Amino acid sequence: MSDSVKDSTAAPDAADAVWVYGFDQLDQVEATLPPGDWEGVRGLLGGKGANLFEMTRLGVPVPPGFTVTTAACNAYLDHDRNFPDGMWDQELAALERVETVTGKVFGDPHKPLLVSCRSGSKFSMPGMMDTVLNIGLNDTTAEAMVKDTGDERFVFDAYRRLVQMFGCVVMGIDDEPFEEVIAEEKEARGLKLDVELDAAAWRRVTERFKGLYRAFTGSDFPQDPLKQLELATRAVFNSWFGKRAVDYRNATGIRHDLGTAVNIQTVVFGNMGVGSGTGVAFTRNPNTGEKVLYGDYLMNAQGEDVVAGIRNTEPISQLKSEMPQVYQEFVDICDRLEARFSDMQDVEFTIERGKLWMLQTRNGKRTARAAIQIAVDLAGEGLIDQREALLRVTPDQVDQLLHPQFTEATRKDAVVAGKRLVEKAVNASPGAAVGRAVFDADTAEKWAANGEAVIMVRPETKPDDVHGMIASKGILTSRGGATSHAAVVARQFGTPAVCGAETLKIDVERKAMSIATSEGPVYVREGDWISLDGATGEVFLGQLPTHEPDVAKEEALATLLGWADQHRKLGVWANADYPADAKRARTFGAEGIGLCRTEHMFFEEARLPLVQSMIMADTEERRAAALDFLLPLQRSDFEGLFEAMEGRPVIIRLLDPPLHEFLPAYDDLQQDLTDLKVRIQHATSLTEIDEALAEVRRKEDLLARVSDLRESNPMLGLRGVRLGVIYPEISAMQVRAILEAAANVIRRGTPAHPEIMIPLTSDLGELAVMRKIVDEVAAKVQEEMGNGIDFKFGTMIEIPRAALTAGTLAETAEFFSFGTNDLTQTTYGISRDDAEGKFLMQYVEQGVIASNPFQHLDPDGVGQLVRHAVEHGRKTRPDLHVGICGEHGGDPKSIALCHDIGLDYVSCSPFRVPVARLAAAQAAIQSPEA
Amino acid sequence: MSDSVKDSTAAPDAADAVWVYGFDQLDQVEATLPPGDWEGVRGLLGGKGANLFEMTRLGVPVPPGFTVTTAACNAYLDHDRNFPDGMWDQELAALERVETVTGKVFGDPHKPLLVSCRSGSKFSMPGMMDTVLNIGLNDTTAEAMVKDTGDERFVFDAYRRLVQMFGCVVMGIDDEPFEEVIAEEKEARGLKLDVELDAAAWRRVTERFKGLYRAFTGSDFPQDPLKQLELATRAVFNSWFGKRAVDYRNATGIRHDLGTAVNIQTVVFGNMGVGSGTGVAFTRNPNTGEKVLYGDYLMNAQGEDVVAGIRNTEPISQLKSEMPQVYQEFVDICDRLEARFSDMQDVEFTIERGKLWMLQTRNGKRTARAAIQIAVDLAGEGLIDQREALLRVTPDQVDQLLHPQFTEATRKDAVVAGKRLVEKAVNASPGAAVGRAVFDADTAEKWAANGEAVIMVRPETKPDDVHGMIASKGILTSRGGATSHAAVVARQFGTPAVCGAETLKIDVERKAMSIATSEGPVYVREGDWISLDGATGEVFLGQLPTHEPDVAKEEALATLLGWADQHRKLGVWANADYPADAKRARTFGAEGIGLCRTEHMFFEEARLPLVQSMIMADTEERRAAALDFLLPLQRSDFEGLFEAMEGRPVIIRLLDPPLHEFLPAYDDLQQDLTDLKVRIQHATSLTEIDEALAEVRRKEDLLARVSDLRESNPMLGLRGVRLGVIYPEISAMQVRAILEAAANVIRRGTPAHPEIMIPLTSDLGELAVMRKIVDEVAAKVQEEMGNGIDFKFGTMIEIPRAALTAGTLAETAEFFSFGTNDLTQTTYGISRDDAEGKFLMQYVEQGVIASNPFQHLDPDGVGQLVRHAVEHGRKTRPDLHVGICGEHGGDPKSIALCHDIGLDYVSCSPFRVPVARLAAAQAAIQSPEA
Repeated sequence: MSDSVKDSTAAPDAADAVWVYGFDQLDQVEATLPPGDWEGVRGLLGGKGANLFEMTRLGVPVPPGFTVTTAACNAYLDHDRNFPDGMWDQELAALERVETVTGKVFGDPHKPLLVSCRSGSKFSMPGMMDTVLNIGLNDTTAEAMVKDTGDERFVFDAYRRLVQMFGCVVMGIDDEPFEEVIAEEKEARGLKLDVELDAAAWRRVTERFKGLYRAFTGSDFPQDPLKQLELATRAVFNSWFGKRAVDYRNATGIRHDLGTAVNIQTVVFGNMGVGSGTGVAFTRNPNTGEKVLYGDYLMNAQGEDVVAGIRNTEPISQLKSEMPQVYQEFVDICDRLEARFSDMQDVEFTIERGKLWMLQTRNGKRTARAAIQIAVDLAGEGLIDQREALLRVTPDQVDQLLHPQFTEATRKDAVVAGKRLVEKAVNASPGAAVGRAVFDADTAEKWAANGEAVIMVRPETKPDDVHGMIASKGILTSRGGATSHAAVVARQFGTPAVCGAETLKIDVERKAMSIATSEGPVYVREGDWISLDGATGEVFLGQLPTHEPDVAKEEALATLLGWADQHRKLGVWANADYPADAKRARTFGAEGIGLCRTEHMFFEEARLPLVQSMIMADTEERRAAALDFLLPLQRSDFEGLFEAMEGRPVIIRLLDPPLHEFLPAYDDLQQDLTDLKVRIQHATSLTEIDEALAEVRRKEDLLARVSDLRESNPMLGLRGVRLGVIYPEISAMQVRAILEAAANVIRRGTPAHPEIMIPLTSDLGELAVMRKIVDEVAAKVQEEMGNGIDFKFGTMIEIPRAALTAGTLAETAEFFSFGTNDLTQTTYGISRDDAEGKFLMQYVEQGVIASNPFQHLDPDGVGQLVRHAVEHGRKTRPDLHVGICGEHGGDPKSIALCHDIGLDYVSCSPFRVPVARLAAAQAAIQSPEA
Repeated sequence: MSDSVKDSTAAPDAADAVWVYGFDQLDQVEATLPPGDWEGVRGLLGGKGANLFEMTRLGVPVPPGFTVTTAACNAYLDHDRNFPDGMWDQELAALERVETVTGKVFGDPHKPLLVSCRSGSKFSMPGMMDTVLNIGLNDTTAEAMVKDTGDERFVFDAYRRLVQMFGCVVMGIDDEPFEEVIAEEKEARGLKLDVELDAAAWRRVTERFKGLYRAFTGSDFPQDPLKQLELATRAVFNSWFGKRAVDYRNATGIRHDLGTAVNIQTVVFGNMGVGSGTGVAFTRNPNTGEKVLYGDYLMNAQGEDVVAGIRNTEPISQLKSEMPQVYQEFVDICDRLEARFSDMQDVEFTIERGKLWMLQTRNGKRTARAAIQIAVDLAGEGLIDQREALLRVTPDQVDQLLHPQFTEATRKDAVVAGKRLVEKAVNASPGAAVGRAVFDADTAEKWAANGEAVIMVRPETKPDDVHGMIASKGILTSRGGATSHAAVVARQFGTPAVCGAETLKIDVERKAMSIATSEGPVYVREGDWISLDGATGEVFLGQLPTHEPDVAKEEALATLLGWADQHRKLGVWANADYPADAKRARTFGAEGIGLCRTEHMFFEEARLPLVQSMIMADTEERRAAALDFLLPLQRSDFEGLFEAMEGRPVIIRLLDPPLHEFLPAYDDLQQDLTDLKVRIQHATSLTEIDEALAEVRRKEDLLARVSDLRESNPMLGLRGVRLGVIYPEISAMQVRAILEAAANVIRRGTPAHPEIMIPLTSDLGELAVMRKIVDEVAAKVQEEMGNGIDFKFGTMIEIPRAALTAGTLAETAEFFSFGTNDLTQTTYGISRDDAEGKFLMQYVEQGVIASNPFQHLDPDGVGQLVRHAVEHGRKTRPDLHVGICGEHGGDPKSIALCHDIGLDYVSCSPFRVPVARLAAAQAAIQSPEA
């Protein structure tokens, strides 16, 4: 490359760096970037800014303005919070161009220009950073505007807003003293609503606000509009590292080095009396995805009034009759924006004296259900293709749609059980939630950390509350609508929410609320159980049982998953231990059973005594007798599985856990014995003593065996295939049950394909022992039943050595299934039970490790072993079938790694099957070879 | 290769296969093998046979005979115990040649030929297989021999031996009824010794033996000499799979598919009256290695009498005066044999009427001390080179030489403590042994398996006893000398042994013995403690303390290890926690400290309370205060280590074990609390109650913390580097102690090179946290002390993920040390504590796995990880220093693997350092690139 070619990605030379662009300068911005790099534009201007630029180019009416870039923000933050060289001058120059276009002048005593100053980062962080409106007002310009508009009330309402926002956002004063002043003014006049306050009142409020400002900051409210602008720009920059913003980014995985842009835009007024208004809307219903405008507006109000949810709003459809022409223009603009951005848009608008202005557009947040419906619809409308539709829905959204819900039956039961419906309000975020009421975010977070299900109840939520909202099962507010902060955040995190429940009187201080019902008030205190349905807006007292959703009725989901099946390379199987699980897995689209844990059958109440007598057997004969009792029970379990799967492969893992898990705990037995001895001391009859002594003997026998089986590290002890080698009769019984079950099912006309899986293998020698047992039993069963069963023999790979020696294991094993839970434990030398509470979370929080390896499969260590095992296993046996049956099999990030490694399938819990189908398709679409 | 070239390794065509060779046909044997393939000759003819052939070629007087090959044995065993085609005919033809040479004829009524039939496999298995002497005697030939020799007594002694041995060996009759007959005959005549029985007595014994034979087998003793020969040949073949032989091969690692040859040789008679005799001798002293003939002989006796140890023998030096000419001839032959075989020989000879016959020669078994002395001497004499000398000594032999021994001081203490010297007998195998007396092999094995130290006491030992001998710490017999079965086996396994302790009266049935002493008889019953010194032949009552050997005085060892140091590539370091260990390690030749475990210092009685108060601290301040107390103690420990190592590298590992290990056990605390409550109930004073209550509170606090720290799998829990991340103040204290100690030592004029090692690392993030702590402390110490310490920072590799991500770990770590104990546990998913008792031994016994991976480093799994880590670590940091500090570092097989992988050093316990030096040299000499 010659020196004369300019490298477009190089950092701009500080001397001629451009930090500020006008909304009409999108071409100039694009010229600094590779062609068509929309992401680059968004990175530089922020999402909000980029869209303002794009709208301006599309001819949509956007109030003139300019954007200070994220690069400027980063330079500012990197250099001890000093503006980079030239930035402020460029801001002044851009301001001048706006003055020219609008014919107004900043700080001018005759025709003053007012601007807003808004944050805007590459990825939307709703309400997380700061905004200041009406910059440019001061004592002089306020009077000028009074003259110009003749509307003193409006001007001083605007002025008091500037002082209030400036005080709060820029100077960090609490909002409450300001709100108290307004409340006092209303009270003094016996008024209820802000709009009822007159000009004199707002003038007085403005003065009192300036007094508050002085009292809290020690200096006067700045009268110089440029000083206002400078401080507001700094405040927006600084808000990038505000606690709320940092928490939000940590929760959502947004990088901390992106920075925010600052959008400075001519203020238009929705509160300039009749014919003015402001609103927010989605181009489609963000709850259901239905293709219909959805939103709220308020006449004679400024934007914050709508979003904050403080005043109750009108539905957008109302605008059609109120201002038909404006409404039609708005509808047209929405269509153009959807066409341009190929997605549902979330727009803000203001009507100033009958003129529509679009203040911002962005891709709208939506519920899981809406995301799926919209993706499928957009593909149907030809705006995107199937692959894009598949990428538009996150696996988490599919999961949310499968969240538990209350059914009608549950509700009726609830009434019978005295769990009353006490309120029906705004269905802000769907899903059923059951939890204990808490009235602040910190308590919500703390209780949730202790494993409590909590529902956070607040009059309204603010960005400060997000950490509590994330920790809660559900959110309930008494104020605000479908676009309130609570609703938006809840939808994003898939948390059920009911908003605007006006009958609730919430006393945050006393941690209690009363609900006015037709039968009189009911009281809910901190810790009381409540249930809510975010899909219907209903609130119940007590704990309602939840039911599973009916996936079959989710048509858009079915369509999307059908497309996913066409694109994915990975098979999706399910882990299922019972016929009911297997049936559910089939409903969800599972193509096989990747893991049936036979020990779960052993734990069943009716069988546990048999299992215990097998373990307590002191001779091989007695053990054999106990196993004979278990055989028909296991056989019938397996028959049910094979029947449910109708010939699809069923991988059955032989007994895995250490035997002591089937016996009472050592500590419990010791306690029981102590109790029994006390009972004997206080016994009042010989019979009682005799009975207690017999019990003592039984418990002592148990204790002896439990002591015998006690291990210092049971995870690494006598379990898995080791049990099979030491007690071959147990394995033989299980193999017999599997093969006899298959034979019986086949006789009844249903195909059956059992695959026998050996757990915890670490050496080929172990597989050889098990293979011998299996072949011997198979030969016997064939002889007895008269027909041979076609089965496969394979092994779990869940021990590093198994992965390392996979090449030899494949000599005997016909399939591998990666048990990545144990493989992660042994590869890291970490016991999950011990670690997650004790140090692993601290590791993740402190950034010692990138993520919890039990959540996302570790690509560097565990993933390396999996890759090695697949490679060497297939070298030995090219048709080796390989899958994963650890919890990672249902985790999208891990599924992508499994796709990359080239596994044949993932197996996960039945409920995760739809999630896995989508994730597998996304992995295939996004993989480099696709 | 053209078809006409004969492939010498091809199986011989059955039609013209040669199964039998005469002793004079060595050239023919060699012609079937590649040139110079002495191992091939030994494989085909067995060790004993090959040497008989070689002696014959050297002109040594060997009684004529022939050998049936091991190939014939294997063919026989493979084909349902049928002789292969042609074998028997060849045996008959070879017999004819012997008849021609000797002028005697098999079964001839005038000049009958007698032969012996002996087993002989490639590797010596002393006494493990069967021998039959005097084949060819029957009622007719016996009378012929009486006529020929005029010595009826001799002939019928020989005949009764044939019937007895044939009955026992070929027909499986117990030896006891035969011996009882002899005892009865002696008793009837009031005689004590066998030699006192006259011709008539032996005639009568022979008849009674034939009666016994008939009674036990149901048929007559075979009179046909060829039938005798055939059955004896079969018996020898069959004995290859006799229980004794199989056990022995399992214990010594000899392959089971080698088979045994059968050596059929003219019998010469050492019991043909005066001028006849028989003996065994070593060409050098097998206990000390001294270059002097060493052995025993018996005049007028047959070979078994000497080996069985039933009669007490004369030392070989006695022969010089008894038969000077024969002695000189014998000495000359011994020299020629040593020269030919380049090693000390173990020979059997017989003198028949003044004529010396050599019956066998083989490399002699020897003690560890002798092995080293002989190897060094042979190299000095020019018979072998240094490399060969290094290969002649096994690392186990070096270890044996370092076995504990009693010192004079110990002996004196013993007398004071009432542990009396009760016997001084034959010093059959050196070393000090302390254990409980047991009187049979099965008990010895059983007790030893339960962890008991046992000493096996027997009148004499037989091959049946070997399993008990292997399990015993020492062996004590009342009969037999330095070449008795007990002595030979004990020396081979490095087990101390005292033999021929004639004052012992052993009652095997009652499991007790009496020892006649000058102060009257003392009694020892099963389970009583005794001590014995195999180097002096002393036996003591009770448990004598043992002292360590003085390696500095072992000159031959020093020479050999000096040669080893010249040949080895691997460094040899030691694991040492205390200055005394470090000093010992230096004495043994350690070049550095590969592992200092700082937790051992924490466990010391005086410090444990400080450590506990550090753990119990509920604030960081209190923890810091406790750590401040520990700092100077740790510092002084480290100063001692640095001083002992005088500038050699010292790797110090930061705290590793879980904190609960420093607190009382949960179960113990619960028991204590129960006890305290009982004490309160029965208290008799208020003071007592108050004290008990205070103790209850203290224990309850402890219990709470122990509960808190309790883990389900502590091996995989909060320990190692995880402690350092969660409690950085502990690491900071340790790092400070290390660096301050180094600074202090350097100030005093001794160089110090500390290396700080992080345990249990699994992620680079952990190392980054620790590196930061270390660097911060180092900077502070430098500031405070005024001089910077040159130290290294490195990590254990003991978790599979550390090995897998070694390439990134090496970005921060300057050295790796493989902790193969934990690495084996995590790679196999096996907790050693739980597994070795529960299933691992069963795995090894049943052949599920090839060997215990905690004993020998697993090359396929763990070794693969080590190799991967070394390769990727060095790719990142070419000068990365890598070693091993697990127990494998002292295991020769594992050392060879470490050499092969290319580690820089192995680190092992101080006592294993000499072993490791030799093993490392052998690995270097035997490696393919050498």
